[in-house]
Amino acid sequence: MKTYTLGMIGLGTMGRNLLLNMADHGYQVTGYDKDPKMLKTLEEVGKAHDLKGFASLEDFVQSLELPRRIVLLVPAGPIVDSVIQELEPLLSKGDLIIDSGNSHFTDTSRRAAELAEKGFHFFGMGISGGEEGARFGPSMMPGGDKAAYSAMKEILEAISAKVNGEPCVTYIGPGASGHFVKMVHNGIEYAMMQLLAETYDILKNGLGYTNEQIHRVFDQWNKGRLQSFLMEVTAEVFAFTDEKTGKLLVDMIKDEAKSKGTGKWTSQVSMDLQLPIPTINEAVSSRDLSKFKSLRVELSEAFPHATKIAENQQKVEAELEQALYAAMIVSYAQGLHLLWQASITYEYKLNLHEIAKIWRGGCIIRAELLEDIYQAYSKNPELEHLFSDSAIQDKLKATVPDLRKIVGLSIENGIPVSAYASALTYFDSLRTKRLPSNLTQAQRDFFGAHTFERTDEEGIFHALWNQPTL
Amino acid sequence: MKTYTLGMIGLGTMGRNLLLNMADHGYQVTGYDKDPKMLKTLEEVGKAHDLKGFASLEDFVQSLELPRRIVLLVPAGPIVDSVIQELEPLLSKGDLIIDSGNSHFTDTSRRAAELAEKGFHFFGMGISGGEEGARFGPSMMPGGDKAAYSAMKEILEAISAKVNGEPCVTYIGPGASGHFVKMVHNGIEYAMMQLLAETYDILKNGLGYTNEQIHRVFDQWNKGRLQSFLMEVTAEVFAFTDEKTGKLLVDMIKDEAKSKGTGKWTSQVSMDLQLPIPTINEAVSSRDLSKFKSLRVELSEAFPHATKIAENQQKVEAELEQALYAAMIVSYAQGLHLLWQASITYEYKLNLHEIAKIWRGGCIIRAELLEDIYQAYSKNPELEHLFSDSAIQDKLKATVPDLRKIVGLSIENGIPVSAYASALTYFDSLRTKRLPSNLTQAQRDFFGAHTFERTDEEGIFHALWNQPTL
Repeated sequence: MKTYTLGMIGLGTMGRNLLLNMADHGYQVTGYDKDPKMLKTLEEVGKAHDLKGFASLEDFVQSLELPRRIVLLVPAGPIVDSVIQELEPLLSKGDLIIDSGNSHFTDTSRRAAELAEKGFHFFGMGISGGEEGARFGPSMMPGGDKAAYSAMKEILEAISAKVNGEPCVTYIGPGASGHFVKMVHNGIEYAMMQLLAETYDILKNGLGYTNEQIHRVFDQWNKGRLQSFLMEVTAEVFAFTDEKTGKLLVDMIKDEAKSKGTGKWTSQVSMDLQLPIPTINEAVSSRDLSKFKSLRVELSEAFPHATKIAENQQKVEAELEQALYAAMIVSYAQGLHLLWQASITYEYKLNLHEIAKIWRGGCIIRAELLEDIYQAYSKNPELEHLFSDSAIQDKLKATVPDLRKIVGLSIENGIPVSAYASALTYFDSLRTKRLPSNLTQAQRDFFGAHTFERTDEEGIFHALWNQPTL
Repeated sequence: MKTYTLGMIGLGTMGRNLLLNMADHGYQVTGYDKDPKMLKTLEEVGKAHDLKGFASLEDFVQSLELPRRIVLLVPAGPIVDSVIQELEPLLSKGDLIIDSGNSHFTDTSRRAAELAEKGFHFFGMGISGGEEGARFGPSMMPGGDKAAYSAMKEILEAISAKVNGEPCVTYIGPGASGHFVKMVHNGIEYAMMQLLAETYDILKNGLGYTNEQIHRVFDQWNKGRLQSFLMEVTAEVFAFTDEKTGKLLVDMIKDEAKSKGTGKWTSQVSMDLQLPIPTINEAVSSRDLSKFKSLRVELSEAFPHATKIAENQQKVEAELEQALYAAMIVSYAQGLHLLWQASITYEYKLNLHEIAKIWRGGCIIRAELLEDIYQAYSKNPELEHLFSDSAIQDKLKATVPDLRKIVGLSIENGIPVSAYASALTYFDSLRTKRLPSNLTQAQRDFFGAHTFERTDEEGIFHALWNQPTL
């Protein structure tokens, strides 16, 4: 019987593509899926690699060399637990399970603890890059037992995307840090996507551009400093014709955005950590809001609509490029600041410069800008906030005035720019020495006796703001 | 031995004041606290009412008439569970426990189920109004077993605030609905407080007003349609002199806002319910952001500061009043929309018109505007969103142009107006028939095969945006 180096459970597009990627790199790998259709697809597309799957979980497990390396690519949630439960009696001590779905990091913490007690290694590994990335080189964020990582290092580095010859995978840290970092990656992705949607809205409704003009703008920007995978995708979307209607497909798609939860998780966790990421929050809210279509239609009849921007198109287009660049910096900055905080709170000991490095290629948020961010964290791996880096400061100084201009124009003309506006108000808040939050504390102490701190003296104080109550 | 109608566990300011309030209305009530100091304070302030507490939990429970009514006013979290655990062996079947702290509604659901199994009634009741409210008339939001509510109705109505002779308490609904509604009340409170803080910032840094001028503005607004408890508190804050320095105390308070979690919970739950409340989210983020003081000081040296608004002060002040009125409507609208959604998802069967009614008095968010909101939900108790009410629409049409103006001026001058901006972008999003979210869905389908829906045909679709991968 043949012995395999690694086994994959879950042969959907992602799992199948990852296996093909490994086979391309000369690894003897195999897969298992409950669904016979998935097995058949694997065999069909895997013919060139003699890639076969197992229909029996027991045979699958028996076919793997010891200690076993088993990657799960199944839907996050209870299915992960049930697969692990089925696996357990078939495993030997020292085997390694790698959950590569988008599991919530608290589930990963729990599973790692449970499996460690039983003598198994467990890794939570975020994978980004979509189907294409999985097939030809994703960015991977594995976290867990460092010793166990050595058993996977070679394969992961081989199949990962490369930037300047360097693999887009690294050991992230202990515990659930891999899934945490992947979650925040997705949070940043939400913000970037919402900014691109708002940019589209400004081009379309503010400047009155046609889809062809919009395609040209995104395509052109993608050749400059705004180059990114999402920009490339966006440009291509505006060049894709719908077979059915002959129109551009983008116009035939419903304006209701769905989500699978990683953006929401990022926002929710950030609030637990009391670390503000308002632009990611706005991106999450914007998707949710889009789904209230009938309410929107009703209200659109009651209130005035957005108006065109009465300025030179070329000029506004150039300012918009600047604004988007500034807002993209803000989006990454918020995500990285959250990682900085999580690293302290959860003792992940994250190396932000390594994380910026592996995000430069393979993943959905890969972008030219990540090279600059990588440089910032290389110069100072202890950097608390991206805005403190002098090179990033120079970029912000050059672009924030146009971010201000674009948000102002959009506000004036009623174009909804939730993410853009929040990126700017976040910047403005964070560079403000004295915020009006002293009033908030005064109010809290006034009506709830929640106390306050003073600027001129250490301690906790309470004032008798009102007449005595009793 | 004397028999008491009701017993209070937890004799801090809130619990003590509620007891005094009950005693004022002729009820024979008593209290228990582990801390002898708290008991002593109760006796001291309660002399006029012959109000005494118990040092022994057993004696306390024995002193109550059957079925017992026991109100908990202890810190939310594990303390509630441990108090219930201590109580259980001393109770009789049919006794009623009312948790009046700011418990998370999921804890309340759990406790209600656990106690029901043991034959006890349990109510989660949110109380708002601070110390003063507890003493002379709070707004109360009790939720749980409807039959059990009848045992409390008379007392609660007697001690509650009154508006036009109507009590600010009503049966909210089943399960944890009382705590849920109180949580959302606090979420709205966060948004209102952040809007007031930003208003202060605009007056101070945008218009260069002195504290005396700021006091005058808030005091004057409080006499008009912006009348509210929080406006009154704000006006008084700007008239309160610090004994130590002789300056206004507000200037001596650190600009770092703290929070106890109810705003955060509101935001987190709203994301689970996929119901957007971005202005409340921004209020939560703004408090969190304020705590990064040293980062703010550092960045304030790197970037330009806010500038003065170069327009007529009187004119801007009048526009600001309009803007604040619009943004306040938005804050209530978001909170009430969340209640509308929660009522469906959790089957709370909430009566939003009753909720608006009991918020008109006693609670922290009480305001003149709530009378208009109450009217809107009275006209149509099934109203999904406040913006659909025609009278509210008239108010928005009259004030949103100045909200737009004020956000524009603040953006232009670098005054951070996170909550104001998000109130406007929320309004602009919600009254947009066609949002750019079709691009988001196109992108999701492009890189993740997440599918999309079409405007011209029912079904779920996937496009081959790219070259085939395999």
